[in-house]
Amino acid sequence: MTSQWQQQPVGLVGLGLIGGSLGLDLVARGLEVRALVHRPATAERARQRGLASRISTDPDVLAGCGLLVLALPLDRLLEPPAELIAALPAGAVITDVGSVKAPVLRVWQGRVPRFVASHPMTGTAEAGVEAGQRDLFRGRPWVATPVADTDPAALAVVRELATALGADWLECAAADHDQAVALISHLPVLVSAALLQAADRGAAAAAGAVPALARALASSGFADTTRVGAGNPELGTLMARCNREAVLQGMAHYRSALEDLEQLVEQQRWREMEAELDRCRQLRPPFV
Amino acid sequence: MTSQWQQQPVGLVGLGLIGGSLGLDLVARGLEVRALVHRPATAERARQRGLASRISTDPDVLAGCGLLVLALPLDRLLEPPAELIAALPAGAVITDVGSVKAPVLRVWQGRVPRFVASHPMTGTAEAGVEAGQRDLFRGRPWVATPVADTDPAALAVVRELATALGADWLECAAADHDQAVALISHLPVLVSAALLQAADRGAAAAAGAVPALARALASSGFADTTRVGAGNPELGTLMARCNREAVLQGMAHYRSALEDLEQLVEQQRWREMEAELDRCRQLRPPFV
Repeated sequence: MTSQWQQQPVGLVGLGLIGGSLGLDLVARGLEVRALVHRPATAERARQRGLASRISTDPDVLAGCGLLVLALPLDRLLEPPAELIAALPAGAVITDVGSVKAPVLRVWQGRVPRFVASHPMTGTAEAGVEAGQRDLFRGRPWVATPVADTDPAALAVVRELATALGADWLECAAADHDQAVALISHLPVLVSAALLQAADRGAAAAAGAVPALARALASSGFADTTRVGAGNPELGTLMARCNREAVLQGMAHYRSALEDLEQLVEQQRWREMEAELDRCRQLRPPFV
Repeated sequence: MTSQWQQQPVGLVGLGLIGGSLGLDLVARGLEVRALVHRPATAERARQRGLASRISTDPDVLAGCGLLVLALPLDRLLEPPAELIAALPAGAVITDVGSVKAPVLRVWQGRVPRFVASHPMTGTAEAGVEAGQRDLFRGRPWVATPVADTDPAALAVVRELATALGADWLECAAADHDQAVALISHLPVLVSAALLQAADRGAAAAAGAVPALARALASSGFADTTRVGAGNPELGTLMARCNREAVLQGMAHYRSALEDLEQLVEQQRWREMEAELDRCRQLRPPFV
């Protein structure tokens, strides 16, 4: 890494999973990393973990940064505190890591001159100051959703950051990003959560030995299918809230797909059902 | 293993995942294992893999066995060929490995005197003569569903087999077993398959860059949630077919749970949604 932006400190706002992982990777590469966190206890622990070169609860810590990553939860990203806005260094390239892009652009594009909406996709459910880890971004997609008035030089800086950390860079329209992640990331959370509720309700309705039996017999298939449904409730809610329209569209497609399968079972159309399940088997490899 | 039944050969009908794994474990314990398979090519390969001591396509191979495991797919188990019935050694303890128990009991109980319905739960999707592996049953549930006229001595023999292979023995009513596995094994297949279809349909409906993007961005969450939906279509169909009523009940519970979540999103009741997702997070640990 030898580019212009690396001559100045890199700023991180937030040191959770994404911010902390960025900090570890950048510090390891010898960069000066300055981080703003919310609580003194977080600052203390983040210092112990070496998540950044300088860590503070005072927004002034960001002064002089040439590149700034807003590694905040979606809700805080969409309602940024005035003191954060005031502390953003003039002229800095600013990017975010939010998992929904159109609402982020509505809030940030135009508010700061060199904003680049981006989303490093990490697929890890951990959160908080303990979650950051080295090489979290290696081999993972890092999606940017530039708009017409995105500064091309700023976009290039964020791209350099992403590729320097081993991520696979992609650019697309924010609306396309949001529809895609609704289907492959936000919808699975709801589908998976509903399975936990159905197993609980179904077992309770059957009563007798069934509730204990269902829990004793559940194996890796159930564990895999319910993993994301039992993830961070705050994150799951934020994704649905910030990507509501696309999530509802995805749920409508899901409902119709499930009803089709249910009809095959109801009407005992086993040959068609086997063909449908065979089609599902073929659908999966391009996604995984 | 020093019991009476081990003085005679153990018979296996089928050398797929379950039969082959049983064969490997039993041969390794020094038992004489005789196996009946359908096709000469399977017999040949099974001999190379050492899945049994003697392997044949001739039902006479089962003569003299004191314990016999019908390790057949559900459809063949529910419509056993007459020549198989004719070849079953008189007086042998006979068990099966079918994943639905009430229909198996309807076909087999009363047809052979010492039948014990059982279901070793392995959670592996592999199938065929290459699938068998050592220690497949270790630490896994092996459920028996005895009825009033099940021979207690025969039940004890199957229990000895299961525990000798390291499985966790459970006994319950067939109807309870079938309801429990509908919820934790059969329903997840359909839920997961529908997600693959919804992602495919939703991406196609969005068109433009979304279909390619959805496939590029899908990560471990999508992979986990769709794993069982892309499993063996024949097995998925058989489970739904043989456990149709319980699967339909499970789907009704699922549909209602998903509709509840959809309403929360539709009506923007975010606080309740977070509480629901938090409840899901708490529901999971007893299952996994």
